Amino acid sequence: MQPQTPYYAVIFTSTRTDGDKGYAAMAKEMEQLAQGQPGFLGLESAREEIGITVSYWKDLQAIAQWKKHTDHLMAQKKGIANWYSWYKVRVCLVEREYDFTK
Amino acid sequence: MQPQTPYYAVIFTSTRTDGDKGYAAMAKEMEQLAQGQPGFLGLESAREEIGITVSYWKDLQAIAQWKKHTDHLMAQKKGIANWYSWYKVRVCLVEREYDFTK
Repeated sequence: MQPQTPYYAVIFTSTRTDGDKGYAAMAKEMEQLAQGQPGFLGLESAREEIGITVSYWKDLQAIAQWKKHTDHLMAQKKGIANWYSWYKVRVCLVEREYDFTK
Repeated sequence: MQPQTPYYAVIFTSTRTDGDKGYAAMAKEMEQLAQGQPGFLGLESAREEIGITVSYWKDLQAIAQWKKHTDHLMAQKKGIANWYSWYKVRVCLVEREYDFTK
């Protein structure tokens, strides 16, 4: 993934409730669904004590469309009801980036 | 942590080389050191296949100061030499945020 700045990042941080309760399957499904959305640029995810998922988007319109996607709305509802004890969403403009590869 | 937007996030994503080689101790030390820097607002971190560390800062000046901190510079050098096979740094303006707590 090598988009040119500026583009957008959505930082989703969360803590899980106990037990899977269908979470892993949903997470995989949402990741695949996001990849097919207009303006999707990439997604990175890791979970230890806290879960961090960062998705990358072309612009705010792409983020707004993905937020309102029917299947994603259902996952958001289930997330609040079952899967997360806490989450936070940050919508960010990526202004600058650099990388290193060995 | 409840800073008001806008503020800045630095998204540091990385993949590790094999073996610890002093990495865990350095990571803990850098986290503690960052917490004492001017303009530091918070830090969140998780690693599975990929590592994601997001640090939050008041402004670009705070990020520039932290990047140039002597001990942090040494850790960056060792990171390139020993600990990381790949990393990417994104400097982002947090424009909007919302959260949920059960």
